[in-house]
Amino acid sequence: MNDIKAYTHPHVRGCSTVRLKGGISQMIFGSFDFRFCRYPARFGIVVVFVAIVLLGGGCWLTAQTAEGASAYQSVDPFIGTGPEGHTFPGATVPFGMVQLSPDTQIRPFKQSYKWAAGYRYEDSTILGFSHTHFSGAGHSDLGDMLIQPIAGEVRLEPGDVEHPKSGYRSRFSHSSEKAEPGYYAVTLEDYGVRAELTATTRVGVHRYTYPTGAAEHVLMDLRSSIYNYEGKVLWSRIRIRPDGTITGMRETRGWAPGRQLYFAMRFSRPVISHELYDREPPVEYRGFATPGVTPGDKQALEGRGLVAVFDFSPNASPLVVKAALSPTSEENAIANMNAEVPGFAFDEVRRAAHGTWEKALSVINIDAAPAMRKNLYTALYHALLAPSTAMDIDGSYRGPDNQVHKADGFHFVSSFSLWDTYRAEQPLMTLIEPESRTTDVVRSLLESQKESPFGILPVWQFQGIETWCMIGYHAVPEIADAYMKGIRGFDPEQALQAMVASATYGPYGHLDEYMKLGYVPIDHDGESVSKTMEYAYDDWTISRMAAAMGHKEIAEAFAKRAQNWRNVFHQKSGFAQPRYANGSWREPFDPARAGADSGFTEGNSWQYSWYQPQDEAGLIQMLGGDQQLVSKLDAMFDAKVDPKQYADVEDIAGMIGQYIHGNEPSHHLAYLYNYAGQPWRTQERLQQIVESQYRPAIDGLVGNDDLGQMSAWLVFTSLGFYPVAPGSNEYVIGRPFVNRAALTLPNGKMFRITAEGMSPENRYVTNISLNGRPLDRSYLRHEEIMRGGELHFVMGPTPNQTWAVKPSSRPFSLSAQR
Amino acid sequence: MNDIKAYTHPHVRGCSTVRLKGGISQMIFGSFDFRFCRYPARFGIVVVFVAIVLLGGGCWLTAQTAEGASAYQSVDPFIGTGPEGHTFPGATVPFGMVQLSPDTQIRPFKQSYKWAAGYRYEDSTILGFSHTHFSGAGHSDLGDMLIQPIAGEVRLEPGDVEHPKSGYRSRFSHSSEKAEPGYYAVTLEDYGVRAELTATTRVGVHRYTYPTGAAEHVLMDLRSSIYNYEGKVLWSRIRIRPDGTITGMRETRGWAPGRQLYFAMRFSRPVISHELYDREPPVEYRGFATPGVTPGDKQALEGRGLVAVFDFSPNASPLVVKAALSPTSEENAIANMNAEVPGFAFDEVRRAAHGTWEKALSVINIDAAPAMRKNLYTALYHALLAPSTAMDIDGSYRGPDNQVHKADGFHFVSSFSLWDTYRAEQPLMTLIEPESRTTDVVRSLLESQKESPFGILPVWQFQGIETWCMIGYHAVPEIADAYMKGIRGFDPEQALQAMVASATYGPYGHLDEYMKLGYVPIDHDGESVSKTMEYAYDDWTISRMAAAMGHKEIAEAFAKRAQNWRNVFHQKSGFAQPRYANGSWREPFDPARAGADSGFTEGNSWQYSWYQPQDEAGLIQMLGGDQQLVSKLDAMFDAKVDPKQYADVEDIAGMIGQYIHGNEPSHHLAYLYNYAGQPWRTQERLQQIVESQYRPAIDGLVGNDDLGQMSAWLVFTSLGFYPVAPGSNEYVIGRPFVNRAALTLPNGKMFRITAEGMSPENRYVTNISLNGRPLDRSYLRHEEIMRGGELHFVMGPTPNQTWAVKPSSRPFSLSAQR
Repeated sequence: MNDIKAYTHPHVRGCSTVRLKGGISQMIFGSFDFRFCRYPARFGIVVVFVAIVLLGGGCWLTAQTAEGASAYQSVDPFIGTGPEGHTFPGATVPFGMVQLSPDTQIRPFKQSYKWAAGYRYEDSTILGFSHTHFSGAGHSDLGDMLIQPIAGEVRLEPGDVEHPKSGYRSRFSHSSEKAEPGYYAVTLEDYGVRAELTATTRVGVHRYTYPTGAAEHVLMDLRSSIYNYEGKVLWSRIRIRPDGTITGMRETRGWAPGRQLYFAMRFSRPVISHELYDREPPVEYRGFATPGVTPGDKQALEGRGLVAVFDFSPNASPLVVKAALSPTSEENAIANMNAEVPGFAFDEVRRAAHGTWEKALSVINIDAAPAMRKNLYTALYHALLAPSTAMDIDGSYRGPDNQVHKADGFHFVSSFSLWDTYRAEQPLMTLIEPESRTTDVVRSLLESQKESPFGILPVWQFQGIETWCMIGYHAVPEIADAYMKGIRGFDPEQALQAMVASATYGPYGHLDEYMKLGYVPIDHDGESVSKTMEYAYDDWTISRMAAAMGHKEIAEAFAKRAQNWRNVFHQKSGFAQPRYANGSWREPFDPARAGADSGFTEGNSWQYSWYQPQDEAGLIQMLGGDQQLVSKLDAMFDAKVDPKQYADVEDIAGMIGQYIHGNEPSHHLAYLYNYAGQPWRTQERLQQIVESQYRPAIDGLVGNDDLGQMSAWLVFTSLGFYPVAPGSNEYVIGRPFVNRAALTLPNGKMFRITAEGMSPENRYVTNISLNGRPLDRSYLRHEEIMRGGELHFVMGPTPNQTWAVKPSSRPFSLSAQR
Repeated sequence: MNDIKAYTHPHVRGCSTVRLKGGISQMIFGSFDFRFCRYPARFGIVVVFVAIVLLGGGCWLTAQTAEGASAYQSVDPFIGTGPEGHTFPGATVPFGMVQLSPDTQIRPFKQSYKWAAGYRYEDSTILGFSHTHFSGAGHSDLGDMLIQPIAGEVRLEPGDVEHPKSGYRSRFSHSSEKAEPGYYAVTLEDYGVRAELTATTRVGVHRYTYPTGAAEHVLMDLRSSIYNYEGKVLWSRIRIRPDGTITGMRETRGWAPGRQLYFAMRFSRPVISHELYDREPPVEYRGFATPGVTPGDKQALEGRGLVAVFDFSPNASPLVVKAALSPTSEENAIANMNAEVPGFAFDEVRRAAHGTWEKALSVINIDAAPAMRKNLYTALYHALLAPSTAMDIDGSYRGPDNQVHKADGFHFVSSFSLWDTYRAEQPLMTLIEPESRTTDVVRSLLESQKESPFGILPVWQFQGIETWCMIGYHAVPEIADAYMKGIRGFDPEQALQAMVASATYGPYGHLDEYMKLGYVPIDHDGESVSKTMEYAYDDWTISRMAAAMGHKEIAEAFAKRAQNWRNVFHQKSGFAQPRYANGSWREPFDPARAGADSGFTEGNSWQYSWYQPQDEAGLIQMLGGDQQLVSKLDAMFDAKVDPKQYADVEDIAGMIGQYIHGNEPSHHLAYLYNYAGQPWRTQERLQQIVESQYRPAIDGLVGNDDLGQMSAWLVFTSLGFYPVAPGSNEYVIGRPFVNRAALTLPNGKMFRITAEGMSPENRYVTNISLNGRPLDRSYLRHEEIMRGGELHFVMGPTPNQTWAVKPSSRPFSLSAQR
């Protein structure tokens, strides 16, 4: 029997949800909810019964329709807004320039890590709604153009978190919150204002319902910034145009120095009065203009401490505020607004956002246990937030030279957290997004290289501006991976040139010494080992692409560089270790040492020693055999760790021994058992990780989501395979965590994953077939997926110690290049 | 006999000058120089003799050729670089965007008034050569992109003026200086570097000759700013492009808030090494990037304290540096450079600048006594410096909204010191520059109005950005004057609308109260009387233009407003006086009170009471008759004044009693005797002023030149007439200070002024004829000039008390509108 249960949804008044759960429906559909608003729950039950009768007796919904219909509902944007995820619950469309979300605290730099997304679930007050956020970043910025609706008395300062009424912040309760893709709502208790948010790509749309009869205000604070500090705002400007449009800009010296962001804002009702304030503490001399001479304080104002307050007549109908962004000019912000949200139809924008998300999420149809289904669609949602659109509707964008350029025949995107996303996030996009998406990513990287003052590819770029965050030149594997997968919407010669330029630019990250010595020495670089390991992998992807293009010399030179990981791998200790420029190893060596000058980036030798996805066979050889690698991996996973070891290191969370799932250097590690011919050990570790590290809950992400990488890891892993070495065109097979899944590929074909006998007890892959034929190796080739078809797993309670154990059936290794 | 003398020019090696002086040549030509380079002086003498023989016996050079040839040589850019003139000696072409000149001191704000042009003749050290300057401003800014050539040791700070070797500044001696239009040279003694400067419209070209064998450097200090203060640089950027081009930008919060200026620079010889420095004192948190992570410190740098040093191999040939500006982007700076100075041919650029100036100065051919001739050509030179080009070669410019716009069919200019220049500077341009020049000025004003956040015309704008300096809406009379003079290169309807918008924008300068009360009350505005007087005049010009366009309603409304001067004129005291909003006069009243809250702007009631150029007849009536006005004027000119009275007021200099020639409110006053039927008194006062206030010397300008207004006053006055009331199409006749002058009018016709019997004793105009017919009135009509012809003055030793004394023969007055 179907277990049908009706309940009133706690957060949306007038809505009921009827949940189909258990029995046949569970097997077929997992579970899904039908939601009925404005009708009593009983009515819903009747409707569902009727529907079941109508659909019964062999008249199946196609998997696509049935599962797609509930994909949207399976997303919970609150997942990860707790301790470590650094995600935000606000409203955005896929890859939106505007990511409109509540900010709960804006802290000075050194306390601000926890508020990297502006919002933390544990907070109880909301400062307002700002228009730009990173999803899951470690370091942060943004929070541009904070807007707070105010009923009654206006306070111009945010106020103290301990004393809400000391400022414009308002208390709120989670019970009033609602978040779904493209929509967020909350009630600001101190004002009695119901605030709803939705968005298009470049426009945030707010709907504020004020209490009846209250004085209605909208406050905009151009000082507010995520990762705030004294002097961060270099300059800002606000102007009320004759037609009532408010435009302006803000330039900040934050993570992306000298970043200019322009905006345009309109209200659905007339502003009856307004005030512009410059709250910067007095400076000795700020220009000639004095009040009375300048008309500046009424229609326009410039400065470093701007706050604006707009007043509206009390009105029964809600106030709709739309605010567009542009990286290039106020005019373009207006054009973006006119193109995307010409009117004030909030519900229409919300419906459009909903539709866009339905479509975006439907690229993977998932049948999995409810919790996993929620995890997965939320992960897919998070994976679809960045790199985000960074150009105007007319193609204008700001490049790394901080000059305005025009995108010619492509869509300029930014928010490149490349150290994270080259691993699984971008490979996932290549599988599920239209090919033009990957082309846009690659062309944006290549144009950025052309515009870079240094002539190198982006490292960690947002809104076109470089931050130099993290290490490596991981735009390189993203481009190589695209090329190797047959994507040709860019000029490969230009691309290869840009990649080589980035890999040989001496001043960057001690590449000069790397090129001279074959490794980065610890003498001059506290992250020397991590850099060496990652450079070597990046080099290998250049070599792969150059070889495929017939550039033999480049291919050979970089194949040689790809071996450089060996120069920091100390064969005696069996660990990657810091090494001096004179060739000697630094002693004493402690593989657990992390932090400043350890030689490692956000980690230690326990994670980094096994980072040679281009040459794990070489690692096995170096260690002395398969079992040695397995022992090392086990030692890592099973280590007893004193967390104090990582006290000074960011983004260390989700620890299983010395394995740190919350951070990227660990992301490929569970798959390495396959390389040692023990895929069942990979399967065990994956279950251990998935079960302990992901939950459909506020704290459901154990580490920073890192613009989708943590999420993309889960999506891949749950499908049963993972791109350990982008550029290899191989996916290493783990085990599935879905019953069934169907990917709609960019070429329109379907690739299905089916898992037979999936249960908590059946932890092992007994055997695998691809399109009905047994698969005797523990990896998949990209072209096998792209041809469409079905990957069928048979799960069982015991390891199959014969499957894919031979060296030839193991994933890519440099010593066995295919 | 001609007095022919050959001498070797002291500063230009290999050049000789042969000067024709005295005797017949002096009478005909004034004096002029022939210059011969690379040939011995003796050769020059022979050539000149031959030339004289060839030209002798009745074969005269036309006046134009003969006088034009020496106009250039008559300019002395050092005039006014002394105490009060605030002019600069550097290199520029007419209306150049680049005005490249040495800066001698950069002082913090409160001490900086004296260094408004960057250079003061009394100084003995040069900091470097910066690319933008105001000519004769009171308040100031600019000094962008300071460059200093250095031989030997490099110091990164400017150093103490008392201890030159403490910084990069160098001592210099005036004997090594040479300045002529478009060229400046000096020897930097501490480095032994000969520095020469020249320019095109948008490119400064430097030629540095280093001592043999010395280490050669060029230092660029992006911190240096005229009117400097802590925090003035908001952000700056420098980048060395792969092709060696240096580009960058600077954004300052100075007089024009948020002003961005971009640059591009190239050297004629390869840079062998360079360093980029950020000398900003440490701030707590400046972004994520840390040295070693960012390649930033080598090829590009951003920040608020940037200094760059470029090193060159010792070389016998000089180093040529070219630096282009753009208000919009680095790319456009490069394009400007490529278009205007493709190579490194310094002499060619200098020759072109010379040629441009020859042509520009030749619009007036002057025969006058040598000192006056030098005064006049230098005045004409100073009058041709602003408003300067503010758009790129492709028409891109930055408007008052700080957004980039494109000039469509006109040439965008800025540096609008309108409070000064509407009086005589712009009217002079209308007479001698092509009509397109005035069209460009008007269209730049109108486009600025469209782009203004306040929808009003510029007040004091530079590089497109508004400063709100001074009072009034004097773009209005500039536009009305152009319209009344028949210039139609703009849309008069758009213009009138913009003028009315500016005159009715309540928040500006208490216009709201002005419109309500008919005057600005002293309660809320310390400059209330000056504002009322000037608004009323500006209003009259709107009325004139509206009437001419057939907009009767507007014409009447503003004709009424033009009478508002009466509302602050206290008939009993016979002075304009501060008045409260309730209608009462502020007591006690002292007409000599100046400064803060006096009711007056840079002056007092002694100057402002007679500011009703639209209605001097009304003033006479108000005072009780002609003689009362004459008495008032005499009382003003002959007053005994305690200079302490003006201790707190800027730009008060050139005092004759309470007449202050150094500042604009006095500029029309000497001409007012004509309105009272006593033109001989005007003639007396003019001689008194001209003789005491202008000299061909360092201290030859008694007040700030104010972007050409002080100079334009002299040019007009010396020609014998002055535009007391722009918009009236009348010029009030004074007396000439030239023997002969010929103006080439925009329509190609010539208008000649001839003065018969000119001598120090013959101070009075005995009679005047226009084209041979006696002129019985003391004013000229614009159309009379534009028809071409000759205005002939007969000078004599005694006043002609019958000429132009009847009311009908007096200049424009509202009560007798013609």
